Amino acid sequence: MLGVLGGMGPAATIDFMAKIVRNTPAERDQDHIPMVVRVATDIPDRTAAIVGDGESPLPALRKALHDLESARVSVIALPCNTAHFWYDELQAQTAIPILHIIEAVADTLPAGTESVGVLATSGTVNAGIYQKTMAKRGIRCGFPSAEGQQDVMLAVQLMKAGDLGSARMIFMRRTEELYQAGHDAIIMACTEIPIALADVALTPKLIDPTEALAKVAVRICLAERAASSR
Amino acid sequence: MLGVLGGMGPAATIDFMAKIVRNTPAERDQDHIPMVVRVATDIPDRTAAIVGDGESPLPALRKALHDLESARVSVIALPCNTAHFWYDELQAQTAIPILHIIEAVADTLPAGTESVGVLATSGTVNAGIYQKTMAKRGIRCGFPSAEGQQDVMLAVQLMKAGDLGSARMIFMRRTEELYQAGHDAIIMACTEIPIALADVALTPKLIDPTEALAKVAVRICLAERAASSR
Repeated sequence: MLGVLGGMGPAATIDFMAKIVRNTPAERDQDHIPMVVRVATDIPDRTAAIVGDGESPLPALRKALHDLESARVSVIALPCNTAHFWYDELQAQTAIPILHIIEAVADTLPAGTESVGVLATSGTVNAGIYQKTMAKRGIRCGFPSAEGQQDVMLAVQLMKAGDLGSARMIFMRRTEELYQAGHDAIIMACTEIPIALADVALTPKLIDPTEALAKVAVRICLAERAASSR
Repeated sequence: MLGVLGGMGPAATIDFMAKIVRNTPAERDQDHIPMVVRVATDIPDRTAAIVGDGESPLPALRKALHDLESARVSVIALPCNTAHFWYDELQAQTAIPILHIIEAVADTLPAGTESVGVLATSGTVNAGIYQKTMAKRGIRCGFPSAEGQQDVMLAVQLMKAGDLGSARMIFMRRTEELYQAGHDAIIMACTEIPIALADVALTPKLIDPTEALAKVAVRICLAERAASSR
């Protein structure tokens, strides 16, 4: 059973669940993957903790993790890129495997990828979350200018306040900029971004980490079901 | 904290969660309502148990209910109309209030409503789930013809198999039929139907029970938060 440590934000959790359902071959309800989803909206802001003086989200993340453990899930997904700053500390807390969203993204990149443009929160950028994983594969990361990055953070906040239209315009402009910079792929590295850009045809080079994470989770859960029915 | 006894089917659970988020006034993640969602896809088919010789879903429903109880939720929503056949038995199991989707619908009907057209699974129709609640308010229920009802069941199954396009055509035709019959309102009384008809402009008389249930849940959870911060 899949555990989802969600709520960062709730719309992103719902988008992740929809991508789980869409990627599961199913004819009836019972073919779908059982889940326990913790929409932990009380987790303090991740970027504020990384770049500013915000409260650490780690205690609240740890509590939600233990709730999922008590619910006897067998694998955990964390559909928030910025929260992966605390990935190692969370994984150290539990024997249940936690899927890593950036590893899931890296695994979907075509061979020969040399550089990726990353649209993310300032927390994700400043903490080097993408840089670390990509460097291990010899892939460079590019980001918006300082002004562009401020713009991206504004759009993330607009999304969380429900203003999808304004957020979409900003994400489109900043995606286009990274695209013009010649990266091999552009990563929508905050789970709010693929929601805003869901109905927009931009470039086939756009990578959706939420979708990548959902596909890994579906593959693992279906393999688990096949093993248990043998 | 809101508990969601879901998975019947998973897409309906996601639709319910999206309606919770959309009906919550929020500027940031932390303003949203915390939830524990049990996507219990292993619950046996409800209609098969009511109209045929299918396995009873009650033990699996009860198990999911107790999981939500262990997670210390304060109120529970069950976004599946047909599962309300077992409502009394479930509510008898727990001191935590379970919101009743048909009562939520009845509360949204304008004063003076005399008859409603009900598009639902054959389980919901045969068990008299809507008839019972509406009769207490002096409201008559109308349903599709026998052939129309078979058609609705087919469309529900198409939805669960992911064929939204074909399902939508059927639901549109059967909605139109009930509309022509002169009912004061038409109720999309299976949680798959509002998903299929989400982008369709049919009649303002269409009532969405998932939305009605979400609004009640939001009102209760916000009142709970206000009380605890006093």
